[in-house]
Amino acid sequence: MDTVEIYEVGPRDGLQNEARESPVAEKVALVDTLSTAGFRRIECASFVSPKWVPQMAGSAEVLAGITRAPSIRYAALTPNMRGFEDARAAGADEVAVFGSASEGFSRANVNASIDEALERFAPVVEAARAIDLPVRGYVSCVVECPYDGAVSPDAVARVADRLFAMGCYEISLGDTIGQGTPDAVARMLLAVREVVPVGRLAGHFHDTNGRALDNIDAALALGLRVFDAAVGGLGGCPYAPGAAGNVATEAVAAHLARLGYNTGLDLDVISKAADMARAMRGADKD
Amino acid sequence: MDTVEIYEVGPRDGLQNEARESPVAEKVALVDTLSTAGFRRIECASFVSPKWVPQMAGSAEVLAGITRAPSIRYAALTPNMRGFEDARAAGADEVAVFGSASEGFSRANVNASIDEALERFAPVVEAARAIDLPVRGYVSCVVECPYDGAVSPDAVARVADRLFAMGCYEISLGDTIGQGTPDAVARMLLAVREVVPVGRLAGHFHDTNGRALDNIDAALALGLRVFDAAVGGLGGCPYAPGAAGNVATEAVAAHLARLGYNTGLDLDVISKAADMARAMRGADKD
Repeated sequence: MDTVEIYEVGPRDGLQNEARESPVAEKVALVDTLSTAGFRRIECASFVSPKWVPQMAGSAEVLAGITRAPSIRYAALTPNMRGFEDARAAGADEVAVFGSASEGFSRANVNASIDEALERFAPVVEAARAIDLPVRGYVSCVVECPYDGAVSPDAVARVADRLFAMGCYEISLGDTIGQGTPDAVARMLLAVREVVPVGRLAGHFHDTNGRALDNIDAALALGLRVFDAAVGGLGGCPYAPGAAGNVATEAVAAHLARLGYNTGLDLDVISKAADMARAMRGADKD
Repeated sequence: MDTVEIYEVGPRDGLQNEARESPVAEKVALVDTLSTAGFRRIECASFVSPKWVPQMAGSAEVLAGITRAPSIRYAALTPNMRGFEDARAAGADEVAVFGSASEGFSRANVNASIDEALERFAPVVEAARAIDLPVRGYVSCVVECPYDGAVSPDAVARVADRLFAMGCYEISLGDTIGQGTPDAVARMLLAVREVVPVGRLAGHFHDTNGRALDNIDAALALGLRVFDAAVGGLGGCPYAPGAAGNVATEAVAAHLARLGYNTGLDLDVISKAADMARAMRGADKD
């Protein structure tokens, strides 16, 4: 059986976009449950200013509180050197930086152009590699941007290439607002595959339009074997309750199993974690 | 025929929550079209820091650029004295302040408790009244809060009472995340009616769950005769494309006409303005 890895991002990308600020103890309990499910990598922290992202306050406490499985890398998002130093001090096993494929999103999200943002991340990547800490690179808005509209495959390829050349070991391509279709995703991947080996690419799909599994299929057909997902479908938008967030880990795991892929995941544990995750969402979603 | 007034908030509450930053010229053209539709009040500016709300940059230019109809009051949101002074200098005909009925939303939105936020608005209301500028008060999260869950009718009544006592001539009650049901809205209104005359209340419903018109019906039955709406259904959330925003002016106007209420609005002009508004949305919605 061909193996496909699901990279669990619920405790970070998921919870970060939920209205409710989950207590550290709940985050620790979620990560500890996920640690028994068979994942090799779990993103569970973000060292950004709690002023901007209150949902990610307590990231150091989360990393300190979890029971670590030796086979799992616990990852943290680190947008700058301050965040990187904090993540290192907290014992993150890998860190992540992110670039946007669209100027509008980059400006709205980090108040910088794409190039400025990439320049900001370069020292983080360098510092991480100097201590042999793996760095993952995210590209956001790989299909469509809420501000600029359609994003060209070449723009995505350019940012992916930059992050890979900078030293990121894997590039996760994010359909941040879940507007991708299989055709658009395939066109994008064909362009990115030209500049980054397909074995170093991951697909990161949001299910806003209910097309995430279709987009995963399109990516599988083009050789991708790593997909980000969030248990319980965590993520979304506080002001649009009910809007879908990241594609749900349990849905991806079941889908891949049906297709005959081996994920190495225990679906019962995933199901239990999904229940915990749903309970951690904003009160209106309980 | 009983008269019901629609208070047009599309150029402010609507556009403020759209991903795209509309150019001043487009905003001016939209307001100028709306000025020929028969509205008595149009909210078209917000004097907040463009750093926090880039969509509202150029509010002074909008107020300077529009062709004013003498019968219409052009309103601006003014969260603090700086904003108030700017709104006054720009010639706003009325200003608005806002309080939240939930602590979680207040903290997330203005980084202050409900009481702290109300104290901050008091001098704005005082300064406006000193120069006979009408001040409208908004209460947000009158049914449900994305952070705290269900909001008690008493909490809404308390904030409405405070704003009215402070000198706001009208209190607009906002179901900010569109989770209200007619029953919940009615319970809330019954509590608020105890402390603020019903003739000074307005309903402000978002259509996230498609219940806005039902909620308007519930409010009509309890005596409310002013409703906020945004032409084209402007509003929503940049990260959840397709999520509904403010209830659409054209839908409310048609609904009220069917019920036999007189709105004084020209539905053809509204329809034209709705087309303009939809074109101003994020590119993905075109």
